[in-house]
Amino acid sequence: MAPPFPLPGPMRRALELARAAELAGEVPIGAVVTLDGHILGEGENRNRRDRDPTAHAEIVALRAAAERLGDFRLTGCDLWVTLEPCPMCAGAISHARIARLYYGAADPKGGAIEQGPRLFTQPQCLHRPEVYGGLGEAEASTLLRDFFAARR
Amino acid sequence: MAPPFPLPGPMRRALELARAAELAGEVPIGAVVTLDGHILGEGENRNRRDRDPTAHAEIVALRAAAERLGDFRLTGCDLWVTLEPCPMCAGAISHARIARLYYGAADPKGGAIEQGPRLFTQPQCLHRPEVYGGLGEAEASTLLRDFFAARR
Repeated sequence: MAPPFPLPGPMRRALELARAAELAGEVPIGAVVTLDGHILGEGENRNRRDRDPTAHAEIVALRAAAERLGDFRLTGCDLWVTLEPCPMCAGAISHARIARLYYGAADPKGGAIEQGPRLFTQPQCLHRPEVYGGLGEAEASTLLRDFFAARR
Repeated sequence: MAPPFPLPGPMRRALELARAAELAGEVPIGAVVTLDGHILGEGENRNRRDRDPTAHAEIVALRAAAERLGDFRLTGCDLWVTLEPCPMCAGAISHARIARLYYGAADPKGGAIEQGPRLFTQPQCLHRPEVYGGLGEAEASTLLRDFFAARR
C-alpha cells in the first residue's frame, strides 16, 4: 500500500544518504540542507571513515552548505535529517540559524529535541528553528534497527 | 602580584590561542587537547575565517586531535578551553570520550556545563568527563569582555 503522501524530496535524499552510510559500515543516518527547495549541502554519518568524533550527518551537511554559501550562518535554510538530532547537532543547528528542522525517527536514547535536554526549549537558546518530526520515520527507524540488530 | 599557583601549560596555550583568534577578528576562545601531558590538537574560534558554524575552538581541537590519533574516540585525553563549552561542544566532548574537561570562565549566556541544560548531568548522557572550572578564569573573561566592549 502506498503511503498517503509521498515523502518530500529532501527527506528521500537524506534516507538515500543513510543507506550509503550503512554500506560504508557507519550508523545509517543522512542529512540534507536546503534553501528555497534546492539542496545546498549533504551529509552522511562519517565518524569511522573520517576518524572524527564530530562527523554526524547533520554536522557534515551544515559544514558543506556553509562552504557552498560562503557564510557561517545559514539563515533561511532548512535541515532534513533521518534521526532526531543529538545535543551536539542541535547546538550546531542553532548556531547556523537553521529556519526549519525536519527529522524522521525520534531518538529516545540520544535525542535532544523532544526528549532529554530539549535544547530548543531552554531559555538560553538563542535561535530556535521550527521543528517537524516523524517525516519518513518508518524508513529511518527500520534502517537503524536492522543495522544494530546485525551487529549484536 | 604573582598568582598563588602558575597556570598549567595547556591552559596557558589555550589563552594564547584565544589571543590569536582575537587578532584574526574572531571571538577570543582557545582550546587544546592533551594526552599524558602532551598536546595532541589545538583550536581557536574560526567561525568567520572558515565560514563554518561548527568551528568553535573545542571542535577544531577535537578534530585535530582525532586526526593525529587516527581514532574518532579520544579515550584518556583531556580538553582545556578558555570558556565554558556550549551545548554543541559539550556534546562533542561526550562523543569523543574526553576524560577530563578543564575550562576557564563560566558562560552564563551560552554555557551548557554548570548552567542551562547542564548536559553532563542529563540521564541520557552516555559519557561524562571529570570537570574542573575556573582555571585561568580572570585572563579568559578579560579577553572576552574587552573584545565585546570594543565592538559595541
